[in-house]
Amino acid sequence: MVTVKGGEVRELLHYTYLGVTLTTKLSFTEHLERKERQAFIAVIHSIWSEYLQRTILKTALKIFEMRVAPTSTSTAFLMPETIRWGIASAGKISNDFVTALKTLPKSEHVVLAVGARNLNDAKEFATKHGIERAYGSYDDIYADSEIDIIYVGTINTAHFSVVMKALEQKKNVVVEKPMAMDLKETELLIACARNNKVFLMEGIWSRCHPAYEYIRSAVSAGEDGPLGEVVRVDACYGSNSRRDRVWKKELGGSGVLDIGIYNIQLALMVLGRSASSGSSPNGDRSTLVPPTQVLSTGCLTSEDENGVDMATSTILTFPGNKYASLTTDLRARLSNEAVIVGTKGCIRLHKPFHSPNQITVNDEVKDFIPQDPLALQGSYNFTNGYFFRYEAQHVRQCLLNGLKESPLLPLDETLLIAKLMEDIRRAAGMKID
Amino acid sequence: MVTVKGGEVRELLHYTYLGVTLTTKLSFTEHLERKERQAFIAVIHSIWSEYLQRTILKTALKIFEMRVAPTSTSTAFLMPETIRWGIASAGKISNDFVTALKTLPKSEHVVLAVGARNLNDAKEFATKHGIERAYGSYDDIYADSEIDIIYVGTINTAHFSVVMKALEQKKNVVVEKPMAMDLKETELLIACARNNKVFLMEGIWSRCHPAYEYIRSAVSAGEDGPLGEVVRVDACYGSNSRRDRVWKKELGGSGVLDIGIYNIQLALMVLGRSASSGSSPNGDRSTLVPPTQVLSTGCLTSEDENGVDMATSTILTFPGNKYASLTTDLRARLSNEAVIVGTKGCIRLHKPFHSPNQITVNDEVKDFIPQDPLALQGSYNFTNGYFFRYEAQHVRQCLLNGLKESPLLPLDETLLIAKLMEDIRRAAGMKID
Repeated sequence: MVTVKGGEVRELLHYTYLGVTLTTKLSFTEHLERKERQAFIAVIHSIWSEYLQRTILKTALKIFEMRVAPTSTSTAFLMPETIRWGIASAGKISNDFVTALKTLPKSEHVVLAVGARNLNDAKEFATKHGIERAYGSYDDIYADSEIDIIYVGTINTAHFSVVMKALEQKKNVVVEKPMAMDLKETELLIACARNNKVFLMEGIWSRCHPAYEYIRSAVSAGEDGPLGEVVRVDACYGSNSRRDRVWKKELGGSGVLDIGIYNIQLALMVLGRSASSGSSPNGDRSTLVPPTQVLSTGCLTSEDENGVDMATSTILTFPGNKYASLTTDLRARLSNEAVIVGTKGCIRLHKPFHSPNQITVNDEVKDFIPQDPLALQGSYNFTNGYFFRYEAQHVRQCLLNGLKESPLLPLDETLLIAKLMEDIRRAAGMKID
Repeated sequence: MVTVKGGEVRELLHYTYLGVTLTTKLSFTEHLERKERQAFIAVIHSIWSEYLQRTILKTALKIFEMRVAPTSTSTAFLMPETIRWGIASAGKISNDFVTALKTLPKSEHVVLAVGARNLNDAKEFATKHGIERAYGSYDDIYADSEIDIIYVGTINTAHFSVVMKALEQKKNVVVEKPMAMDLKETELLIACARNNKVFLMEGIWSRCHPAYEYIRSAVSAGEDGPLGEVVRVDACYGSNSRRDRVWKKELGGSGVLDIGIYNIQLALMVLGRSASSGSSPNGDRSTLVPPTQVLSTGCLTSEDENGVDMATSTILTFPGNKYASLTTDLRARLSNEAVIVGTKGCIRLHKPFHSPNQITVNDEVKDFIPQDPLALQGSYNFTNGYFFRYEAQHVRQCLLNGLKESPLLPLDETLLIAKLMEDIRRAAGMKID
């Protein structure tokens, strides 16, 4: 049962939003895109808080959840567009995510709060980014009822506990990759999200990158596309920054967890999908196809016999004699490029392939730097940090559509990635309990 | 016992060649390089046949053999410089090799004869290239006593019998890669060459390419060089020419034998050497280090269940946590580049990496197109065919120095390559008896 402004709402067939008549038969975004351009204009000229109370968002989301799985007792109400983010951790990656969020319209994204283990860090971060609320613990973020979704940017070893507590508080979560330190932790988090019916996504931003959208489309076009039938993916990622946390086991260091995950996700996106009804490999209508064989070798950091996976080489075999060659190295800067090869052509993802400004399709260079000049103004810690905006936009669309997982990176795929990372790290000598 | 112009020669301490006094304590090339620059000038201005009888070459070679393993009964005589080539097969690759030979000084290389299974083919080839003798069989080449060395450019399946017969006739041989169809054949050929004390080399021209010479030097420089310690080699070679002989089992088709061999030899050259006395990995003073592990997978051509290896993916592990990722594919055009990665930098071998015009060392592009404008004038079937000149020059130096195998590609390494090719093809499903 939902009440709005004191009145009880059982079922609505149409309703008014910002003076525009909408119907429950279409989602809000469908109205925007297909029917009611006026609604879009109205949103642009409004400040959401003048019209709506913040708590309405959740009510509205429930309505659109029901649109995804409609029932006869559908309840509808107007649909605010603004997603209110809480940020867990005031570290480098959180800085980049928030910087990207601020380049998007305020009517779509607001960073409402940041929490850190240390209140001063949170306050400093909040001041820098103009964030309303600063908390001296992650717990305060989970407890803030006005936060719609939490972005978790802690170090890898903290992901599990932070995400678990957030999910238990029925918060939606995007957690930086890797979702957790191993397969077992990943399974527990996913089970918790499903039990609590909240949105959970591993924040592999590449999947939301427009170049990757182009690639999915080129791959799924098959013989009609620029690649023909895709038979290979080669990806390598290596850096040589020995003082980095990546080398430290106590900070969750690991070549595979930190950078090798990008190789794996690309291989799975391109070769690990079978379109079950002739559709694109966008996730929504395709089936996940795990590799049939994993050949892998590697080694641990030599400084410490109980170290982290330093270098790995992996071959994944997929049905239909398709292969992925994946390389990760913490000793040396590799080309950090990836190549997708088909019978008719190939795509080269330029450095850094997980977040490229350009790709080359056969001999044609395609640019993917955001057109919006605002997007390029922020100061980022990580290369091409502005591409975080696409992850934020995608997550927002998922929430607006009432989804509990991202079609671009479903939770079963996150599980498969976690399993492959464990296989590869074990082959390199890691003991994972 | 050696006779020259009717006179018996037992021992010489010094002798005169083209009016220049030489000593038996130094090889002819050492004279050229270090002591007697006049000799070089004299050679340039001479036509060897005006001064020497052709049969003298063999006598001279024996002398320099003895320099390699000196005895008290050393016999010395003057050293002619011209190598007289016989060509077995009038096919595409022979065309390229001969075209390259013709761009070198006639005082150094002469193509004396060509033999083919069909006399008309041999005659046509001889006419095209201005070759004195055309034979309607390979047997006639083996029997021609004036030929110093035979270049074997037949299809792969014929290598074994042609090379074996040539060696049995005590002919020196350079045979196009692969030396033979499998490890067993390769072992037999190498044993025969050693028994007959003749020169034998697998014609992997890359090894003689000046870019590869640069790479050996950069790798062996270690921490002082542009790469630091080399930890990885990635190489991929793929083409999509389905009508090619490479797809036909009866013609010796095989992805690995035809193109994958280039990946393997690069990996071994860079990672498969241990300098036993601090010397360069040029072969002469280094030890061959086989990979400690071979992980490989692949598939056969689907048209024929008893087909050829169509696609392979391989990881070779070398001591010291060094890895090579090697990829071969007959279904798709791969990048055909290779990358050598060290802790300080990397070398990218541009397409086609087995015979590149350019390599990039860190961010610096280095050109290797032959400076001699004559070298670029010929018409070649294979990309950058002019680089054959370096193979011919290297072989000549080996012969002049009385070597029985090339220090750039010793016979034990050819054996190791043959073994790895067999391992990789077996992993792809090939049955090799």
